[in-house]
Amino acid sequence: MSDLSQPLLDKENLDRSSVEPIIPRRSKSSSWSVFQLVSAAVIGGLITTVLHRCIPVSSKAGSIQQEVHAETVPMCPSTDALPIIAPRTNIWKNLDLEEALDVRAWLSDPERGLNLTHAQGASPSDNYIQLVEVAHPPKSQALKYLQDETPLDRYAHAIIAHGGKDVVVDYLVGPLPISENTTFRPRSENYHNPVPLNAHILLNWTMLAERFATIIAPIDPVTRDLFNGSILDGTLQFAGIAPTSYDGKWRRTWGQLRRADPGSWLQPLDMYFYVDMSGNDMSQYSVLKAVYEGKMYDGLDDLVAAWKEGHLTKSPPSSYEWATRAIRGKMRDLDDRAGPRSVHFDGARYRFDEKEQYVTWMGWAFYVGFERDMGVHLWDINFRGERIIYELSPQEAMAQYSGSDPHQGNSVWLDRTFGMGGTVRDVILGYDCPHDALLLSATTHERGTAVQRQGICVFERESGRPLSRHTGRAKNEMGAVKGYELVVRSVSSVGNYDYIFDYTFQLDGTIEIRVSASGYLQGGYWHEGDDDYGHRIHERNMGSLHDHVMNFKVDFDVAGTQNSFMAVSLEMEDKEAPWFDDDWGTTRHQQKIVRRILEEESLLEYPHNMEGAYVILNQNATNAWGNHRGYAVHPGPLCHLTNLDSKRTENSVNWAKHHLAVSKRKDDEPTSSSMWNMNLPGAPPVNFYKFFDNESIVQEDLVLWINLGTHHIPRAEDTPNTLTNVATSYVLLTPWNYNDHDVSIESRNSVLLNKKGGWVIEEQSISSATCSPPRPPKLAYRDGEAWNEDGKAINEDVYALISDVGTPLVAKVGAFNGRGEL
Amino acid sequence: MSDLSQPLLDKENLDRSSVEPIIPRRSKSSSWSVFQLVSAAVIGGLITTVLHRCIPVSSKAGSIQQEVHAETVPMCPSTDALPIIAPRTNIWKNLDLEEALDVRAWLSDPERGLNLTHAQGASPSDNYIQLVEVAHPPKSQALKYLQDETPLDRYAHAIIAHGGKDVVVDYLVGPLPISENTTFRPRSENYHNPVPLNAHILLNWTMLAERFATIIAPIDPVTRDLFNGSILDGTLQFAGIAPTSYDGKWRRTWGQLRRADPGSWLQPLDMYFYVDMSGNDMSQYSVLKAVYEGKMYDGLDDLVAAWKEGHLTKSPPSSYEWATRAIRGKMRDLDDRAGPRSVHFDGARYRFDEKEQYVTWMGWAFYVGFERDMGVHLWDINFRGERIIYELSPQEAMAQYSGSDPHQGNSVWLDRTFGMGGTVRDVILGYDCPHDALLLSATTHERGTAVQRQGICVFERESGRPLSRHTGRAKNEMGAVKGYELVVRSVSSVGNYDYIFDYTFQLDGTIEIRVSASGYLQGGYWHEGDDDYGHRIHERNMGSLHDHVMNFKVDFDVAGTQNSFMAVSLEMEDKEAPWFDDDWGTTRHQQKIVRRILEEESLLEYPHNMEGAYVILNQNATNAWGNHRGYAVHPGPLCHLTNLDSKRTENSVNWAKHHLAVSKRKDDEPTSSSMWNMNLPGAPPVNFYKFFDNESIVQEDLVLWINLGTHHIPRAEDTPNTLTNVATSYVLLTPWNYNDHDVSIESRNSVLLNKKGGWVIEEQSISSATCSPPRPPKLAYRDGEAWNEDGKAINEDVYALISDVGTPLVAKVGAFNGRGEL
Repeated sequence: MSDLSQPLLDKENLDRSSVEPIIPRRSKSSSWSVFQLVSAAVIGGLITTVLHRCIPVSSKAGSIQQEVHAETVPMCPSTDALPIIAPRTNIWKNLDLEEALDVRAWLSDPERGLNLTHAQGASPSDNYIQLVEVAHPPKSQALKYLQDETPLDRYAHAIIAHGGKDVVVDYLVGPLPISENTTFRPRSENYHNPVPLNAHILLNWTMLAERFATIIAPIDPVTRDLFNGSILDGTLQFAGIAPTSYDGKWRRTWGQLRRADPGSWLQPLDMYFYVDMSGNDMSQYSVLKAVYEGKMYDGLDDLVAAWKEGHLTKSPPSSYEWATRAIRGKMRDLDDRAGPRSVHFDGARYRFDEKEQYVTWMGWAFYVGFERDMGVHLWDINFRGERIIYELSPQEAMAQYSGSDPHQGNSVWLDRTFGMGGTVRDVILGYDCPHDALLLSATTHERGTAVQRQGICVFERESGRPLSRHTGRAKNEMGAVKGYELVVRSVSSVGNYDYIFDYTFQLDGTIEIRVSASGYLQGGYWHEGDDDYGHRIHERNMGSLHDHVMNFKVDFDVAGTQNSFMAVSLEMEDKEAPWFDDDWGTTRHQQKIVRRILEEESLLEYPHNMEGAYVILNQNATNAWGNHRGYAVHPGPLCHLTNLDSKRTENSVNWAKHHLAVSKRKDDEPTSSSMWNMNLPGAPPVNFYKFFDNESIVQEDLVLWINLGTHHIPRAEDTPNTLTNVATSYVLLTPWNYNDHDVSIESRNSVLLNKKGGWVIEEQSISSATCSPPRPPKLAYRDGEAWNEDGKAINEDVYALISDVGTPLVAKVGAFNGRGEL
Repeated sequence: MSDLSQPLLDKENLDRSSVEPIIPRRSKSSSWSVFQLVSAAVIGGLITTVLHRCIPVSSKAGSIQQEVHAETVPMCPSTDALPIIAPRTNIWKNLDLEEALDVRAWLSDPERGLNLTHAQGASPSDNYIQLVEVAHPPKSQALKYLQDETPLDRYAHAIIAHGGKDVVVDYLVGPLPISENTTFRPRSENYHNPVPLNAHILLNWTMLAERFATIIAPIDPVTRDLFNGSILDGTLQFAGIAPTSYDGKWRRTWGQLRRADPGSWLQPLDMYFYVDMSGNDMSQYSVLKAVYEGKMYDGLDDLVAAWKEGHLTKSPPSSYEWATRAIRGKMRDLDDRAGPRSVHFDGARYRFDEKEQYVTWMGWAFYVGFERDMGVHLWDINFRGERIIYELSPQEAMAQYSGSDPHQGNSVWLDRTFGMGGTVRDVILGYDCPHDALLLSATTHERGTAVQRQGICVFERESGRPLSRHTGRAKNEMGAVKGYELVVRSVSSVGNYDYIFDYTFQLDGTIEIRVSASGYLQGGYWHEGDDDYGHRIHERNMGSLHDHVMNFKVDFDVAGTQNSFMAVSLEMEDKEAPWFDDDWGTTRHQQKIVRRILEEESLLEYPHNMEGAYVILNQNATNAWGNHRGYAVHPGPLCHLTNLDSKRTENSVNWAKHHLAVSKRKDDEPTSSSMWNMNLPGAPPVNFYKFFDNESIVQEDLVLWINLGTHHIPRAEDTPNTLTNVATSYVLLTPWNYNDHDVSIESRNSVLLNKKGGWVIEEQSISSATCSPPRPPKLAYRDGEAWNEDGKAINEDVYALISDVGTPLVAKVGAFNGRGEL
C-alpha cells in the first residue's frame, strides 16, 4: 500500500481539522450551511480544544501498534434532493386519488347508463371499472403547451369490463376536472376497442377459486394420495398459463399442479389440467383434459378411475428449502463485514419538484409518469436546454417457453397484461437502491387506488470507470472526467419474475435503457429427454428454455420533431490512389462507411458482427462541422424472439420478431402492445405490423421501437433465483455529431495533470473535506398504501386489497391467473 | 422523500450514540478494534458528555429551520487489505531488480560470447538486451508445484537484438538464481525465433531523431512557410505508422506531419512522407516519396521544387485548445459539489500477500503477474477451493484504420509491439480507481527497470444492482443479495490511446473481462469525400474509421484439466404430444436446445441473434443433477475484425478474424501474438492459424481465445477524448451447471424479508453503525521509479529513462516510432 492510502497519518490535515473551526466550503450555495462547533466544548466559560484519540490495532501483518489521531468531523450535509420548480405542469402525471374517485363517481352516475357495480366483488357477468388512469394529450397540443403554455385539457381513460355484453371497452373521459363539459367515448382510435371478454384476465379470484374448488373436488383424494397434498387445503396450487385464447372465442388454459411451498414456481408436479373458463357464466367452467406421468385423460373422471385402478405412481416427498432465498453455505472470509457503500459526502446533486415529478441533474431534465401497464414513463427529456426525447416508455415484456409438457411448452407471457406498473412494489433500500436515493411514488388505480411511496428510486452513482481519461505529457493532455450518472429505477415483480428497469443518464448526453431480471424461474417437472428444453436443476425439476424480449418506445426529437433515420453499414472496397503504389501494392482493401437514409417505416436487424449502426438525425440541423445532428442506437447484449412462427404469438408480439423498428409517430399508434394482446394472438388489439404501411419517414416525427432481450437457458445457478449479471440487456442512445465536441468536458468533477517539474494537479469540485455520513437507516419495508373504490383508506396492506387475495381459499389458487401474484 | 431517508432525526439512534460508549461491533474479528473516547472529554477529572450541535438549513422548498443533532462518530477502521500468506510462491511473478541485474550481468559476461553493449545508447547495428523478464514454467510442472510443492526451477527470458546479425532472438535463461547450472538457449519452441531486425521497432530515438533531422532538413523552409512550423525547432512532429514491414526484408513507413501542439494526434497536416529505414545502417535511411494536398512527389527534392514554383498552398493557422482536456463550457447546476463516493465503512474485505502478489476475496484467490508485452496476467484463479482458470491474460490489442491518405489508410497497430505493460502508468487515484484501492506495483525491465508503484489497483465495488432479488410473500422468498464484485484494473496508455483493462470477480463465480478505451483518436486531415472513412470532427480534422480487436487467453481448468467444448444452438422443431391436440393444433412449433461437443480445435462465431452459447465443460464431472460441470462464455458487445483480406494483416492477426477460438493447450503455443507480429504480416512469428491443426479437443486441456472489440466510427463527441461508455467491450465467463445451485446465496451481505403481520427483516453483515471515513488524500501523482541497466537509481522520472526522450531533438520526433510515447 502506498502512503497515499494512509490519510490517518496525514499530519497536516489532522492538525488543521482538529484545531480550526470548520467553515462550509461552498459559500455561493444557499441550499445548506452548517455551523458546527467541532472539537470545542464550552465548559465553565472556557473554550477548550479536545483532541479525540483512538488506538486502532493495525490490520497489517505484524500488527504494529500505532497511535492514530481521530478527527472529529461535521455531519455530512443533507442528501435530500434540492428544490426546483418545474417549468410546466406534468401533463403526463397519473390521476391522484381525488381525480380517480371523481372519474369513477362520474362514470358510475346512472346518467352515464353504464350500469356499473364495484370491481371489488364483481362477477364476470357484471359491468365494472377495471382501471382509471391519466390519458396522454396529443403530442402537438403537448408541445404547444410546453412551448408557450397554450392551455391543454386533461383527460382520463377508463377501462370498463362489460360483463353483460362480453366485451371490455377503453373509454376517454374528460376534460377534467369533472364539469358540464365532461364527456366520454370509446378510444377506438387506438386499435383496441372493443375487446372480447374472453381475452380479459379474470379479476375476481375469490369467485374463481370457489368455482375451481368445486370443479377440482373429485380429484382431491387423488392428490392427497399421490402428492400428500390438496388444492382444497392449500398445500397444492394450480397455475394456469397464457395465452388463454387465440381470438377471443374461448378462454382455456393448461394448468400445472404445484406444491404450495415457498418458491412454489420451482415445485411443479407432473400433473396438468386443461380448464375451460370461457364466457361469463362460471357455472360452465370445467376441466377438459388431464395429464399425469405423460398420459392424457379425457377429464377428471378418467384420471380418478385410473387412480382407483392403481395405475398412478405416488410422488415422493420433497423439500422446499433449496427453493428459498435463505442463506445456505459457509460464510466466506470477511463476509461478516459490510461491503463498500456509496455516499454523497457533499449533498445531492439533483433537484426534484415533487408535485410535478420533475427531476434535473447535470444538464438533464425530465418529467416522470407512472402507469399501470408498464410503470415508469419519462417525458420531455431535455439535455442542456434541448429536448432529446419526447417520450421514453416501456411497451411490453414477453416470454415464450419451450417444453415437452402441456404447461411449459405452451406458455407465452406478455406481462403488460398483468400490469408491470401495478406490480411495482417498494424498493428494498440499500439493496435495490442506495439508502439516500430520491424516492418517488408509484400510483395506480385499479380496483381502488394503490400508492407505493418508495416505488421508484432516483440516484447518482459512479459508472465504475472514468468517462474519459488520458495519460499524456503535453499541456492539459492528461486528466480524467468522473463517470457520474443518474439512474431512475423501479422493480416490477410479476409473480415469479423480477424486472429491474433502469434509465441511466450520463454526462455526455448518453442514455442507457436496461432491464435486469431476477426472481424465480417458471420451473418445469423433469422428465427424461427434457434436456432438449433446458437443464435438470434439482431432483425432479427443470429450468425451461425461454426467450425474453422487451420493447421500448423512444420518441426522439433530435433538434426538433422532423427527423430522418440512417442505416450505416461497414462495407469493403478496393481503394486506389497515386500513393498506393508502394511496397503494399497499388490498391488498399479496406472498410468504408455506407450511409443510407431509410425512405419508409422499417423493421430492422442489427448487422452481422455489428458491422454498422443506426442513427436518428435531423437533415436540417448540422453541428459546427457540417454533420447532421443525430443520436445513435448502440446496442449491448440483446436479442429478438427466436420463434417467428408460433400460433401463440401469431400477431400479438410482432415487435419482438426484429431487433428494432422505426415508424412515423402517430397519436393513434401510442403503444406497440396492449393489456389484451397476450390472449389474442390471432386478433390482437395492437398488431404492430399495421404501423408499417410504407409511409415516408424522411424528416418526419419518428419513433424508434427498441428491443432488449435474452435467450434464457436456465442452469442450476438459476436456483433459487436468476442472477442479474447475465440476465441483463441494455441499449445506449448516444450523441452522434449532435454536439461539436464531447460536452462532458464541461464537468467540474474532473482533474487535469500537468508536468511542470513535478505534476501540477488541478481539481475543481472534488471535495477533499470529509464529513460523517448519516447512519444508514435501519431497513424498514411496507406494502404501500391503499384506498378502495370509494376512497376509503384500507387498513390491510395494499397487496391484500389490490390482489383480492382475501380468503384462505383464494390464497390457495392464487396462481390461477397465471403469474401467482397480481 | 420518505422519513426513512432522514436518519438525522432518528432519535433512538441519536440518543444511543451520543451517550453510550461505542463498542466495536465485531468481537470475533481480531483484525481491528477501536477504543474511542467519543463525545467525552476528560476535563479536571470530570467526564462531561458533550453534545455537538449543528443547525443545517433544510434543502427542501420552504426551508424550514430544523435543529439537528450531530453525532460524533469514530473514525472508520483501516481500509488496508488484510494479511494472508499465499499457499505457494508466485512462480509467475516478474523478476525483481536484482534478478534482472543478475541476468543482464550473466548474459553480458564475455563468456557468453554475445558481445553486448548497453541498450541505452545502442545503435541499430549493436548487440544489446532489449528486455529481461520471467519465463513461465511448463504448466505440468507448475501444477505439480501447486499441488505438492514439487520443486520447480525459475527461468528468465531475454530478448537480444543482434544488430550485427540483423536478427532479434528471444533466449531462455536459467535456472535462477544464476549458478554454475545456468544456461541459455533460443526459445525456438515458441515459433518466433529468430526475428528479422527490420521487424523490430527502433529503440534509439536519439540517434533516429538526429538522422531524421538531417534527412528532413531540405524541407524545413517549406514547412516554415506552409505551416509556420518546423520539425527541427519542435513545432512540428512526424508520426509514422505500422506495419513497417511485410516480411522483414525492409522497414518503411508512411508518416504524417503534425503540429506538435497538445493533443497532437488531432493536429495532422496534409503532408506525408514515405521513409525507408531498412537495415542497421542509419546513413542509408531516406525519404522515398512525399504527398501534399493530394499530390505525390518522388522525394523531397520534387516537393521543394514545387514549393519554390509556388504550387503549394499555405495552411491556415490553427488553434489547439479544443484538442486538450481543459474544462470548457458553463458549469452545470450543482457541479460545484463532489459526486458520490464509495467507501469501505467496515474495512476492506480482501486479503493480500504483497510478496507473492496474491489476492483473495469472497472465495476467490489468484496470483497477479505483470509483463512488458501485455501487462497484468492472472494465474491459478480459484473459487471456493477449486481452480477455475490456470491463466487469464491479454494477448494483443490491434487497430486497423481506413482512409484516403497514405497515413490513415495504411495504419494497423498491434500494441503488444509497444508494450501494453510497459505503457502502464500509475492510476489517477479517485478517478481511475477509488482512493482506498489496494495498489500493486507494475515492474518491467526494458532498457533498465521501471516500477510503477500504483500501476495496478484492486478494489471492491457494488455492481450497481442486486445480484439477485425477489419480491414474494411466502417464507424466505423475498430478499436480495448485494452485487459486490472485485475489480483488478490497470490502464495502458499506448501513445494516443488509453486502454482500461478490468478483470471483475463476482459472488456467483462469474468473471468479467472488459476493456474500455479513452484517450485521443489517431486523427486524420479532412478532405472532401472523406466521409466514407469517418466524420469531420473539427475545422480540418477527421476521425477515421477503425476496428479495435483485443484477444484474451483463458486457460480454463473446469474440475481439472481435461475439458471439452460444447456449441449450443437454439433450433426450431415441430413437437407432437398426445396433449398437443387442443385448440392450438396438434403440433407445437418451438425452439429447442441442440448441444454439440466439438471434436477438433475450432475458430468460431457467435450465432445470429445470439441464438446459442459456447460452454467449456468436463464430461467426467457432473453436478448433483447429472449435468456436466461447465463455464459458459456470455458475450457483451464485441466484434471481430471487419477486414478479413488485407495484406497488412495477412497472417499477423488471424485470431482477430473470428469471435473466439478453442485449441488444445500447449506450452509451445503460449500466446496468440508476439512483439513482432505487427511488422511481419507476411511472416509472423506467431501465426494463430497454425494452432488449429485438427487436434482432438475432447477431454483435453483447452484454451479459449476470446476477443473483445469495437468498430469505431468516430464522431465529434470523440474530441477531445473517446468516451468509455460506448468504447467498451466485455465478456462474462459464468458458471453453467458448475454448481448445484447459485452459490452467491451464501452471501451474508444480503437480506431476507418475511411477512408476519409486518415485515420481519433479517440482515447479517450489513452494518448499521456509522463512522467517519478518512479524508480522501490530496491527489498526488508521480512517474514511477527507475533504475538503469547497471542498477543505478535514476533521479529523473521513469518516463525519461525508459522512453529515452532525453534531448529536445528527440522530444520533437518522439512520435516517430508510431505511438508518440513509448
